[in-house]
Amino acid sequence: MNADIEARYGNTPEEVALTASEFIAAGAVGLNLEDATGRPGDPLYSLEEQGRRLTAARQAIDHSGVPVFLNARIDTYLQGVGTSEQERLEETLRRGRTDIQAGVHGLFIPLVTDTALIRILAETLPVPLNVMAFPGSPAPRDMLNAGASRVSFGQSLMLASLGLIARIAQELREQGQSQVMADYFLGFNEADSLFRLSKVPEQ
Amino acid sequence: MNADIEARYGNTPEEVALTASEFIAAGAVGLNLEDATGRPGDPLYSLEEQGRRLTAARQAIDHSGVPVFLNARIDTYLQGVGTSEQERLEETLRRGRTDIQAGVHGLFIPLVTDTALIRILAETLPVPLNVMAFPGSPAPRDMLNAGASRVSFGQSLMLASLGLIARIAQELREQGQSQVMADYFLGFNEADSLFRLSKVPEQ
Repeated sequence: MNADIEARYGNTPEEVALTASEFIAAGAVGLNLEDATGRPGDPLYSLEEQGRRLTAARQAIDHSGVPVFLNARIDTYLQGVGTSEQERLEETLRRGRTDIQAGVHGLFIPLVTDTALIRILAETLPVPLNVMAFPGSPAPRDMLNAGASRVSFGQSLMLASLGLIARIAQELREQGQSQVMADYFLGFNEADSLFRLSKVPEQ
Repeated sequence: MNADIEARYGNTPEEVALTASEFIAAGAVGLNLEDATGRPGDPLYSLEEQGRRLTAARQAIDHSGVPVFLNARIDTYLQGVGTSEQERLEETLRRGRTDIQAGVHGLFIPLVTDTALIRILAETLPVPLNVMAFPGSPAPRDMLNAGASRVSFGQSLMLASLGLIARIAQELREQGQSQVMADYFLGFNEADSLFRLSKVPEQ
């Protein structure tokens, strides 16, 4: 179980350490922490602040004795930091190095999809790199080939489902029935089988 | 807000009345009650039991002073009651008449999709009739033309979404990217606009 504890369950290093300890006590073996503050006009914690917050999280992990994977999300691309591509990349690399020095095990940098950029980041920052794919981005396999360790889809599957439902609604309104619904419909047995345990775990 | 209180939040008329009162106190202005017991081997409450349960719900509504819509679901088709189509229809009509006598405002009979059958039920039972459409059923407009007052889709939209996600996963596995995801994907702004209030209600 990975816990996406975002950024706002603790501003100070002390609060972050407390939150991390509580999540680990609750059973989390992965923690994701963002550098986004959620404050308009001041969107990212400073390099130094985020370094201290991640150090505090890592110390809480070490203190727990549980081998928890600590992931840091860097929102420089999501927040459009800097006035040029070069400036944004340099700030991202600075943040990545600081996060690694603080002891994180992996980095997630959303909105980085360009394969040349992934290559630079993966070669410069010596921890596994997570990126996000979406419609219009390069293909996940190309992002993996460029050096990403993991490609996730964020909200894309939910947004595709919303688009499907909007299309079905339009068809029903205009034609009185929906071929699209029939095309994708899974029967009850098929849907159940997706959630069936192939083997019941032993107690 | 309609509350689907199913059948199992109270077996006896007294329990049903208490549940109904609590839902109304919580703000519900619609209540749906099933005749399914959830007991294998004894799937439906008897005609008399269900009549007493619905009478109790209706009295709780009248006592509350809130104009709550009381809907009764009849599961004769869902449970495959009777040994012939004729027997199933007769039992359904008996149950419908009993429910109406108990004071329900509408009936829902899932798995009734045949338009000739809908016509008989709608003509015989003088309250609004709800039915369910799904892929393979007659078109909703034909069910409405036959006399249904409302056609819902049950789990079909969720099952179509599951089918879409399975298709996307297969495409990603086999081809490294997904055209289907791109075809249905709604952008953030479009998705947000679906949930935006066109006018903020006054306080």
